[in-house]
Amino acid sequence: MFDTIRHLSFYTILEEHVRSYPGKIAHAFGGQSTTFAQLLERVDRLIDALETSGVVAGDRILWLGQNSDRIMELLIAASQLDAMLCPSNWRQSKTELAAQIDDLEPKVIFWQNEEVGPEIRAGRELASFKGGRWLQHDGDGEDSYESFLASGRADRNDHREVDTRAGALIIYTAAFDGRPNGAVLSQNTILLENLVLAPTQRISNETVFLAVGPLFHLGTLMQCLTVFHLGGTNVFVRRSDAQSIAQSIHDHKCTRTWLVSKTMDEIIELNHDRRYDISSLRSIPYTEEWNRMVTVEPVETHVPGYGQTEVMGLAVLPQYGRHAIGIFGRPSPLCHMRIVDSEDRDVEPGQVGEIVFRGPIVMNGYWRRPELNAQRHRNGWHHTNDLGRREADGSLTFIGPKVQMIKSGVENIYPAEVEACIRRHPAVADCGIIGVPHPQWIQTVKAIVVLKPGSEATEKDIVEHCRAQIASYKKPSSVEFREDMPRLASGGVNYKLLDEIYGGGNYPGGETRTS
Amino acid sequence: MFDTIRHLSFYTILEEHVRSYPGKIAHAFGGQSTTFAQLLERVDRLIDALETSGVVAGDRILWLGQNSDRIMELLIAASQLDAMLCPSNWRQSKTELAAQIDDLEPKVIFWQNEEVGPEIRAGRELASFKGGRWLQHDGDGEDSYESFLASGRADRNDHREVDTRAGALIIYTAAFDGRPNGAVLSQNTILLENLVLAPTQRISNETVFLAVGPLFHLGTLMQCLTVFHLGGTNVFVRRSDAQSIAQSIHDHKCTRTWLVSKTMDEIIELNHDRRYDISSLRSIPYTEEWNRMVTVEPVETHVPGYGQTEVMGLAVLPQYGRHAIGIFGRPSPLCHMRIVDSEDRDVEPGQVGEIVFRGPIVMNGYWRRPELNAQRHRNGWHHTNDLGRREADGSLTFIGPKVQMIKSGVENIYPAEVEACIRRHPAVADCGIIGVPHPQWIQTVKAIVVLKPGSEATEKDIVEHCRAQIASYKKPSSVEFREDMPRLASGGVNYKLLDEIYGGGNYPGGETRTS
Repeated sequence: MFDTIRHLSFYTILEEHVRSYPGKIAHAFGGQSTTFAQLLERVDRLIDALETSGVVAGDRILWLGQNSDRIMELLIAASQLDAMLCPSNWRQSKTELAAQIDDLEPKVIFWQNEEVGPEIRAGRELASFKGGRWLQHDGDGEDSYESFLASGRADRNDHREVDTRAGALIIYTAAFDGRPNGAVLSQNTILLENLVLAPTQRISNETVFLAVGPLFHLGTLMQCLTVFHLGGTNVFVRRSDAQSIAQSIHDHKCTRTWLVSKTMDEIIELNHDRRYDISSLRSIPYTEEWNRMVTVEPVETHVPGYGQTEVMGLAVLPQYGRHAIGIFGRPSPLCHMRIVDSEDRDVEPGQVGEIVFRGPIVMNGYWRRPELNAQRHRNGWHHTNDLGRREADGSLTFIGPKVQMIKSGVENIYPAEVEACIRRHPAVADCGIIGVPHPQWIQTVKAIVVLKPGSEATEKDIVEHCRAQIASYKKPSSVEFREDMPRLASGGVNYKLLDEIYGGGNYPGGETRTS
Repeated sequence: MFDTIRHLSFYTILEEHVRSYPGKIAHAFGGQSTTFAQLLERVDRLIDALETSGVVAGDRILWLGQNSDRIMELLIAASQLDAMLCPSNWRQSKTELAAQIDDLEPKVIFWQNEEVGPEIRAGRELASFKGGRWLQHDGDGEDSYESFLASGRADRNDHREVDTRAGALIIYTAAFDGRPNGAVLSQNTILLENLVLAPTQRISNETVFLAVGPLFHLGTLMQCLTVFHLGGTNVFVRRSDAQSIAQSIHDHKCTRTWLVSKTMDEIIELNHDRRYDISSLRSIPYTEEWNRMVTVEPVETHVPGYGQTEVMGLAVLPQYGRHAIGIFGRPSPLCHMRIVDSEDRDVEPGQVGEIVFRGPIVMNGYWRRPELNAQRHRNGWHHTNDLGRREADGSLTFIGPKVQMIKSGVENIYPAEVEACIRRHPAVADCGIIGVPHPQWIQTVKAIVVLKPGSEATEKDIVEHCRAQIASYKKPSSVEFREDMPRLASGGVNYKLLDEIYGGGNYPGGETRTS
């Protein structure tokens, strides 16, 4: 099954980088730099320590912390054991964390105390699964990350056979049906996507990438993976924070990052006296002040393309459709795309249908969701739950999610998940969630609630109930109470009417969503 | 073994191009253009016709003709049957052709009458293998290519399971040991290399590539394959000829090709009255006159990188080593490289050793050469038979072939092969081949011959003997007769002394060759 001479994996790539880039910095984080040779030694120790802890093929390793270079070294180590790393969303509530622990039943858990410790401890308490070895990322005792790493042998010269088609990474995503699902991605899928991302995102061995966005989303993580594969340098900050960002760009001469406009404004303000030299950053033009501080590069396109976690981030890119009608472009050389109706028949160009994919960038499936996998991968194609249209020249216009979704900043919020949470409140009979336009966050969440006869609850009660159960960014910003829920003939909530009554709008995909 | 949802093959890529590039020209050859949709229909018919002819997985299909778009459609069709296409070197002698037919035992042979017919018929006669169906590429009767294609069904909608790791293409190469060997390359290997070639060679869906070089070498064929994969257009000329080249660039607005300086001069002379518009060509700067006719693009580098057929053409590229010490660059993201001594131990940076590779671009092996494969792939690494040196910054300096080789134009000539041919002459006792510097062809072949006692042979006898048995470009341009052959203590021919006596030199790799 496994053919040594044609083998390519995170681990063998790291070995090559030690030969190809002697002395080069692989990772930088918090004033600490790690060369490729040092990284290989750390990974070797981790492999040994994980194996000693009983980690075997198919096991899960859970990261409950913020951004760190350790996520990358753990991923390389885990993959060499055919085990999987899941970098968890640290903004989750204790209830969500407990559900994730129970879903994954991880063999080893790395957790962070600072900022997120109380919620994690509460989630651990809540979880039914009581196994797994807990190690503290930011501790320094016996059960700390560094003690664990140091317990492993460095000289293993690891040349075991590894199945690069097996799952290596689990990213939770898309709570269409009310609960998040873990997309399982293989080394093969990741390494192939890297080869498409490198040229289209202009990532090379000269790139010094500053990872600001959360590594529990592919948006930032896939760039780190491509930078690693190409032999560039990854710099990490714990979370988005203007001061750490400016300091990191200054210290490491970062050439690339991705920042929201609010953060760019904060950096401009912070750096009014030019104490940080951030001119190494090749950045898109923004404000005049920003442009004076960074290297402004001509940008070919501002359209990011189309994809989702389940197809390793990006599947359709504008670089394959320059001058095309559909601004999202065409499928990358790694995938095939069809637009289909509800019976999986191709629709004509110009007609809207569901976008489906095939190719090596499709995930292995969701972790422990056999029915959902059968449904999403029916007839040999991955169904995205997204709507799109092929234009006359074969290019794609992405329309929007097939089911209702709310966009808050970079986060996707699935009404079904928030509704399920509110319905669990003892006073609630029914609930509908809409998105209300917001100048900075695109949308905010509004709950329309019907109480049980004789029950009472205030707006604050509902919001606090949500805060305890789901990630803070998913909780409603406002709650409206009604006597009854308007429903369609089909039985579904009449969201169009709720939008009209309560000012909903600005949804991704506009008016085209179907229910 | 085969996972539908992650499948990527020549055939599925062609299906996607029909959707992504409706109406676009896939191939142009001799005034005839073929859209992707038409190509899919032709490939479907070919698959059916080949299957009806009994072609099954592992079978060989032999192309005995010059450049044609049919090589590409046959490759796609053959690969869908897990069969292999071998585009043969049409400059081979009847003896070489016969040996190749016997080596491959092909199920179907497509042959060309024009220019190469007599030699092919003689080779067919000479071959021991008498099986295989012979079809004429440039005929129009019952046994012609088009009749064969037309006999296949077009509506098969072929979705069979294909093993993309199986051999799809056989390219004969490297007669280090006196006979050429067929490197077997899989779809996987080809498709992956395409992803590296596209950005480094600036090939995109907007490329219109004119294939001038022979398609029996990867140099040109790998570019056609990348252009196909990316959705560009391939234009073919039968062989290098200034008039056909200029006409094709004019007709199809070709953006890319590769020409030797002699051909560029011929085009300049031919086009003195500007009857052909060849300005679409994005070309390297050459003479002033040439620069006025084409679009002169700034070129980042003139160094092509390092590779060989056995690693799908290019493995080390200067794009991964900008500003590096070794101008050949660093290994691509698809392979790993070591520099080793005769015991396969790593040599220190700065030391010369044999270049060895690992990764998905390594060939499956040579066709029917189990011992040679074991030797070349020993210890899990592909041994290139080439010498190189890692510089202090990890980059590669390519030194030259480990065994003596002569370079004539773009062709590699292996002394062992020419010597073996001359030794078969009844009057010859011993023979040594050297390369003599030539202002246009880099080197020409000189034979030093020792005759058997009492035997006689003239220079013309030896040259004609070679002409009948090996490709014309390999035959000696001159022959010197001696009483005895100078030999080393090891028993090998003392080539250094022969070079000194007879003016040998200008070898690829200079003085560093080892025997």
